[in-house]
Amino acid sequence: MELTQAVEIVKAKLPDKRFRHVLGVIDTARDLAIRFGADVSKAMLAAALHDIAKYEASEQMKRYLTENNETPELLQFHTELWHAPVGALIVQQEYGIDDEEVLSAIRFHTTGRAKMSLLEKIIFLADYIEPGRTTPRVDECRKLAESNLDGAIIFAYQRTIEYLVSKCAKIHPETIYGYNDLIGASTN
Amino acid sequence: MELTQAVEIVKAKLPDKRFRHVLGVIDTARDLAIRFGADVSKAMLAAALHDIAKYEASEQMKRYLTENNETPELLQFHTELWHAPVGALIVQQEYGIDDEEVLSAIRFHTTGRAKMSLLEKIIFLADYIEPGRTTPRVDECRKLAESNLDGAIIFAYQRTIEYLVSKCAKIHPETIYGYNDLIGASTN
Repeated sequence: MELTQAVEIVKAKLPDKRFRHVLGVIDTARDLAIRFGADVSKAMLAAALHDIAKYEASEQMKRYLTENNETPELLQFHTELWHAPVGALIVQQEYGIDDEEVLSAIRFHTTGRAKMSLLEKIIFLADYIEPGRTTPRVDECRKLAESNLDGAIIFAYQRTIEYLVSKCAKIHPETIYGYNDLIGASTN
Repeated sequence: MELTQAVEIVKAKLPDKRFRHVLGVIDTARDLAIRFGADVSKAMLAAALHDIAKYEASEQMKRYLTENNETPELLQFHTELWHAPVGALIVQQEYGIDDEEVLSAIRFHTTGRAKMSLLEKIIFLADYIEPGRTTPRVDECRKLAESNLDGAIIFAYQRTIEYLVSKCAKIHPETIYGYNDLIGASTN
């Protein structure tokens, strides 16, 4: 799929504010891909499509997850986490994208996971630091991302875990596996 | 095993400061057991023995864990986490205690886990709030423990996760499973 086509599809599905977020993620993913040596076209395509399911109704998302035998465990977590794997399913089944790298970058862009591929890392981080984000301390993460991809991702994991704990919200285990994985890699 | 015998064994193995901590955990576990309806004798015995392996050399702990086919995953976490399952093994194999409730309360006193038994909860919490502890905000946790066992444990999980994240330290998945479990139980 061409990038322009992906952008058109997503534009039709999302409200303006969320679409501007997607454009920010595309730009940031392009910059990160150039900086850290990933495939720029794949990074921009995955960025364009990462939130394709963001505004699907939760019942519809539940149907996608159930029909595709996704882990039932996911349904015990906040619906906010559902749109990422559902997005990967929609992109594959309805738009015929079968590039596993692009699909898994969409799938894990919210939770992260251990042993993320370079493309997965780039979409995860671009989603966290794109220029429209106003999360506390996000500028520190942008600064880290100028030279240290894993360091920036650890920082994003740390802030996400802190935020969830402060809200008494569940933390998806993949986020902890991803955090532990990079902590181990950076300190051992 | 009688409580006095357990205290003698542990006194011989631990430095004075750690032994005073154990005495604090025994008193606190007794109070919590009375308050929340657990077996007081088992709570005091598990409290007395919970740190029996605290000062084992890490090579010795590693040997215990390996010879008993404990999860190799544990060895990837801080040695601080090893003494709890090693303690359960020592208590069982060297002192003949085969009460599964007591053994699992010792085993999970540091990480916690999902679906903790009442006795496991009491030892986990008593270890966190005994009078010698000076952890930030521990008085808030003591206050919660006067009436809300799960609320106090959620609070302890939250502070533990925050602390580990602030130190860029790995978080054991059992701690997250335990936190998610109680959060879910308290809000769903």
